[in-house]
Amino acid sequence: MERKEISQAVISRLPRYYRYLGELRDEGVERISSQELSKKMRVTASQIRQDLNHFGGFGQQGYGYNVEYLFVEIAKILGLDQEHHLVLIGAGNLGQALLNYNNFERRGFIFKGIFDQNPNLHGLKIKDLEIKPMEELGSFITEKNIDIAVLTIPKNSAVKVAEKLVEYNIKAIWNFAHVDLNVPEYVQVENVHLSDSLMKLSYNSSRYHKELLESPNAGE
Amino acid sequence: MERKEISQAVISRLPRYYRYLGELRDEGVERISSQELSKKMRVTASQIRQDLNHFGGFGQQGYGYNVEYLFVEIAKILGLDQEHHLVLIGAGNLGQALLNYNNFERRGFIFKGIFDQNPNLHGLKIKDLEIKPMEELGSFITEKNIDIAVLTIPKNSAVKVAEKLVEYNIKAIWNFAHVDLNVPEYVQVENVHLSDSLMKLSYNSSRYHKELLESPNAGE
Repeated sequence: MERKEISQAVISRLPRYYRYLGELRDEGVERISSQELSKKMRVTASQIRQDLNHFGGFGQQGYGYNVEYLFVEIAKILGLDQEHHLVLIGAGNLGQALLNYNNFERRGFIFKGIFDQNPNLHGLKIKDLEIKPMEELGSFITEKNIDIAVLTIPKNSAVKVAEKLVEYNIKAIWNFAHVDLNVPEYVQVENVHLSDSLMKLSYNSSRYHKELLESPNAGE
Repeated sequence: MERKEISQAVISRLPRYYRYLGELRDEGVERISSQELSKKMRVTASQIRQDLNHFGGFGQQGYGYNVEYLFVEIAKILGLDQEHHLVLIGAGNLGQALLNYNNFERRGFIFKGIFDQNPNLHGLKIKDLEIKPMEELGSFITEKNIDIAVLTIPKNSAVKVAEKLVEYNIKAIWNFAHVDLNVPEYVQVENVHLSDSLMKLSYNSSRYHKELLESPNAGE
């Protein structure tokens, strides 16, 4: 079957559908119309239909969506029906925050190991996982069938570690370092650039208030 | 002057320009053509020109961009020429990670206070800031001229705290709670939904490897 290329914009919205459907399910809601879902999620009903049509539709005319079914199907699309094995690289505050986030484990993202270049940390444990030296990373990835590496290290080390990860045949990198990683196309990278996000907020809030002041109706 | 609405997609790319120009500046590069910048950033030169044209262009035919000038101008556009005062709400691991991130302070984002609902934490200090009870948040925001609240608390508390923040006239919320906040349009919200980001990575990596297996050329 030929699969049409699905845009990253659509894919970015899937976890949000998943979240809302999970909440509806927890509230005991069995079915929902695209209009009701639209109102709840503040996107148009036609956007919802278009987005879900990429994956086969799931809705029935006059019935709407079956919440449980759609929730499970979106989980499958997102790859949440399989377990993912993660390693954390960088045992600082941010890394510890991620380790302590129960949501990830509940959705099948299991941290299997922690690595850090600081020898003072080796042997210490966080959540029953021992912090290991970077030299053991390669064999660990192979033995424990790790598919996702989480990088919570400074940007200079991140570039070098990413090169190593490619050698170790990692499939995916969740990158918190403030740098774009240069890896082959078959390694998936998802960046969380916190500074970029904060600057965008700064832009939007400065702009909004500047426009209010510049507006010809200001003060009326 | 009438200002055209600038799309959030363009705005999302500005911090990345800022980052690359900062690196060029640190390397002592004085000017750069849109072609060179394009190669470095892996976006098309025409995209760069289009993006920057929203703000007045900055480039000269046959010269390219003056790195220092463009860096400073983008900083101004992003609102980085002014200091921003932040409060952290939620003194857990993630909150501490953000407090310890020197990049923010260097760009003018200064944490002025930390608030948490856990009475056992009140009076403790992180980076010279004392953790305070939530009851003092409102007066603190007014007195210290706080413009950005950073929410690193669970989603149920986040919804309630956001309502309070609106009452306290906060201008912007940087939200790490896994929920969409319901606030008036004049309060800017930037979400960092970590689970969503991880699920997107899971989708892209599952999909990529599924397609390899399904491809008619697989194994050739």
